[in-house]
Amino acid sequence: MSFEIKDKDLLGRIGKLKTKSGTVETPLLFPVINPSVQPVLPQRLKDVFGFEAVITNAYILKKRFQNRPIDEGLHNFLKFNGATMTDSGAYQILVYGDVEYTQKEIVAYEEGIGTDIATILDIPTGWRVTKEQAALTVAETHRRAKDFFNLKTRDDILWVGPVQGGKHLDLVSDSAKVMGSLPFNIHALGSPTEVMENYRYDVLAEMILTAKKGIPVERPLHLFGAGHPSMFAIAVALGCDLFDSAAYALYARDGRYMTENGTWRLPEMDYFPCTCPRCVTETPKTLQSKPAKEREIFVAEHNLWVCIAELKRIKQAIRDGRLWELAEMRSHAHPALLSALKRIKNHKDFLATFSPSIKNSGLFYFNPEGLARPEITQYKQRLLTRYTPPTNTKTLLLLPQTKNKPFHKAPEMKKIRQLLRILGSEFAPKIHVAVFCAPFGIVPLELDEVYPLSQHETALPLDKETIEYVADQTCEYIKQMSYHNVTMLNDPKLWNNHIKTAAQKACTEKNIPFEAIDAGQVSSRQLITNLKTTLLKQLTTPTPTPTPTTANT
Amino acid sequence: MSFEIKDKDLLGRIGKLKTKSGTVETPLLFPVINPSVQPVLPQRLKDVFGFEAVITNAYILKKRFQNRPIDEGLHNFLKFNGATMTDSGAYQILVYGDVEYTQKEIVAYEEGIGTDIATILDIPTGWRVTKEQAALTVAETHRRAKDFFNLKTRDDILWVGPVQGGKHLDLVSDSAKVMGSLPFNIHALGSPTEVMENYRYDVLAEMILTAKKGIPVERPLHLFGAGHPSMFAIAVALGCDLFDSAAYALYARDGRYMTENGTWRLPEMDYFPCTCPRCVTETPKTLQSKPAKEREIFVAEHNLWVCIAELKRIKQAIRDGRLWELAEMRSHAHPALLSALKRIKNHKDFLATFSPSIKNSGLFYFNPEGLARPEITQYKQRLLTRYTPPTNTKTLLLLPQTKNKPFHKAPEMKKIRQLLRILGSEFAPKIHVAVFCAPFGIVPLELDEVYPLSQHETALPLDKETIEYVADQTCEYIKQMSYHNVTMLNDPKLWNNHIKTAAQKACTEKNIPFEAIDAGQVSSRQLITNLKTTLLKQLTTPTPTPTPTTANT
Repeated sequence: MSFEIKDKDLLGRIGKLKTKSGTVETPLLFPVINPSVQPVLPQRLKDVFGFEAVITNAYILKKRFQNRPIDEGLHNFLKFNGATMTDSGAYQILVYGDVEYTQKEIVAYEEGIGTDIATILDIPTGWRVTKEQAALTVAETHRRAKDFFNLKTRDDILWVGPVQGGKHLDLVSDSAKVMGSLPFNIHALGSPTEVMENYRYDVLAEMILTAKKGIPVERPLHLFGAGHPSMFAIAVALGCDLFDSAAYALYARDGRYMTENGTWRLPEMDYFPCTCPRCVTETPKTLQSKPAKEREIFVAEHNLWVCIAELKRIKQAIRDGRLWELAEMRSHAHPALLSALKRIKNHKDFLATFSPSIKNSGLFYFNPEGLARPEITQYKQRLLTRYTPPTNTKTLLLLPQTKNKPFHKAPEMKKIRQLLRILGSEFAPKIHVAVFCAPFGIVPLELDEVYPLSQHETALPLDKETIEYVADQTCEYIKQMSYHNVTMLNDPKLWNNHIKTAAQKACTEKNIPFEAIDAGQVSSRQLITNLKTTLLKQLTTPTPTPTPTTANT
Repeated sequence: MSFEIKDKDLLGRIGKLKTKSGTVETPLLFPVINPSVQPVLPQRLKDVFGFEAVITNAYILKKRFQNRPIDEGLHNFLKFNGATMTDSGAYQILVYGDVEYTQKEIVAYEEGIGTDIATILDIPTGWRVTKEQAALTVAETHRRAKDFFNLKTRDDILWVGPVQGGKHLDLVSDSAKVMGSLPFNIHALGSPTEVMENYRYDVLAEMILTAKKGIPVERPLHLFGAGHPSMFAIAVALGCDLFDSAAYALYARDGRYMTENGTWRLPEMDYFPCTCPRCVTETPKTLQSKPAKEREIFVAEHNLWVCIAELKRIKQAIRDGRLWELAEMRSHAHPALLSALKRIKNHKDFLATFSPSIKNSGLFYFNPEGLARPEITQYKQRLLTRYTPPTNTKTLLLLPQTKNKPFHKAPEMKKIRQLLRILGSEFAPKIHVAVFCAPFGIVPLELDEVYPLSQHETALPLDKETIEYVADQTCEYIKQMSYHNVTMLNDPKLWNNHIKTAAQKACTEKNIPFEAIDAGQVSSRQLITNLKTTLLKQLTTPTPTPTPTTANT
């Protein structure tokens, strides 16, 4: 195995990728090296910035430098002692329509120069193409991929099999399955550049997730042409492991200053909001007086610092189990990125399957996008398929979430425990206490220390979608369990009666009694008295015939 | 005037504060100097990091160093040639109950050492106090504030008048008015430390906004004890100009590594997600092997770099008119910060009054918190109080927002213009075209290039609150204007029929005809034919008697 996964969160992972020139850590960004115009020398990228690998274009090398990189070897030619990747000219096919070499020639050249990671000569689908055109590019890519295994002669190079199909997700899905069935070491999502240029990060998210579902999970996924740090966190969360960036240099040429939250043009800047070794030495004003070439190198190096820091931030977030929080934060760099995050909802079961269920950190819940988090999906699945309330409990006592967690240790629960003591051994064992809480829904009190039911913080007041989710979970839970009746302590201030309405609806469907008491209207002492009366009424009323539970019983 | 406002956004501003030791730029952070244990020398704070001012505690100076700072002068004593601020011991009153000097002694000492900015000896309200206790602290602070003007002898020092009242907002409001009526140069919000320690940033937001409403807008507001960079952006957006931070040093002592998005403890870290001159030279592992004192200085300096970069980011955001975007991003560092942002809704008219209405940048709309943005409030106010549809228009033609902006230049509008041409000079002038769009509501087509109606990007799909806001605006608009009938092109996919329902409701109330055509169900050609038929029907039906408009007509 060339790729070993060390840690993961969502679909992101920290991995070790073994190349013939050494092991590199993923998520990994390959700065693009253009040997003709290179603002930062390759070895400096490694020694000063810490980039372990670079990428260059085999097609362009062959065209411009012919056999020199073969004679010198790619590493010597680039003067770089880390890992090298080569692209094949596929992007040039997309831009210029065709390239002047065959796949056979490109593969032989990539092997000849001794790159560590190499790409076959696939056919990019592009953006504004019909499904028929797209299908042709996919078919030809697959033909070439199969043919490639007859061409290759070296076993020490990691080969990349790109997945094509563009925005046509069924084609992407087919392509991922076909490419995934071939013995590539790495996959790539073909030419998402135009998708990104059109700010269709939502489409890109669907493309990445569709590709991920088709390729073997143990192979890294490269996202071609994604070089802006504002989207790294989301792309990693969706399962991308490798990136390449020509942007750091191209942006620098135009005086475009990258940050993890967007891009500025130098003339717009009054301050450098950055601590990088470059930015702490200048102000936008002092830089403006420097020669153009110096400015370009300044911005290129700043851009590289921002990229490498963002990758470290992402890795630390994976270690902490906080990649969602980072991705959600970054999705506020541009509405198109938030639109991408919103698409995860369509794939939440897939995320829940591959994301770890226990983490080092608690969970911060902000906006309804968070409902797609694997922790929430996983809890819902566990509760509704594996949980049954304690034996002999007949009455569900539903309480609103408390500020302090775990709920059973909150001061509000003291009065409830007193009440249960007063109700005594005849009645108390028949009562099952559960809490309704955002964003998880119903939490049986005896489970409230299970991760992450006590390890989360939620922004209040709640938004409508979150309240609705908790209401739906409440309804679903009551319908599925076999309680004889439900008593609820309502908190209309936070929940606007939505949970009450949902619980009532479920009880009506099940044909079981439902009682609700508003927490806000009465004093604490009076409330407990009311609760006691209601519970006794529920417990002593002859058991009705509940409608059979809906599932899993 | 000691304070000159250079630029502003929301309630935040970039200002020049003139002190006797030079002019400093706000928002400004004063690192706290503890002359006994100081991990970073004051002059280094200025020369290397760029901090223009520091703060120290006059009470502690007097207690520990007696007359030495008087004899040497504060600047020489601290070895610092920038601006100095002194606190008075009020915080020590909060912590220890009392201090051993009178206000007279403290004021004389502050004048004696020659500080540039000085604080009176107010009485902090604190957090867990009853309203009665709080009222006493406020009354005593006011008494001392008035008394202070009999004590002061120097006119070259900028004096700070703290606003007290704690979480009791009516007391804060009174205090702000009383303190604001006295000739202080600067105000401060008294001891918010405990509010922050309890993560009640929502309460803090209310306290700040309440204070801001009472004090003169042209005086800077200092937020005592707020030293974590994750909350600077929100605090500045709420109108805070000055901050002090002991946190950079206190956190460093415990190995707590600040970032603009939260805090790590050193042993939890595998990566330094930072480009500061310190962090690019070490990894958490290499740092761990260094002596404790060296680690402390490392973290203190890192913390300072993060703080100064965040202040630059905030200033750049004010220049760009993007402070909301930055504050919204930062509010995703912790749910308690988002809860603070959510409170702005209660004060949106206040924000709209003081925030500029034309900006350099477009507006990014993400989540319903954004509905509190001044741009949205300002547009609503202008539309409903100052706008009347073009004369002689009788039919409102409501169209869904287009992807391209300005709306009237979008490809979809070409067909509508054709339709109006076909309808000809008899009917077309009677039709008024308007677009319903998130987050603004109704945009009359002739206004769509007015800032920011074409200069915004919105994350799709829309959330429920935003759809509801647009629906409410649609209802309100129809009710208020004097159209004879309304025809609507419905886009149920994006809007889930909410706009249609709202428009219908308004028409029913006004007793005017309403027609809606679903855009999704028919081909573009058929749609235009249907629209034409419907419009002709509306225009040729005898005018009903509309119920009188509800306001401003």
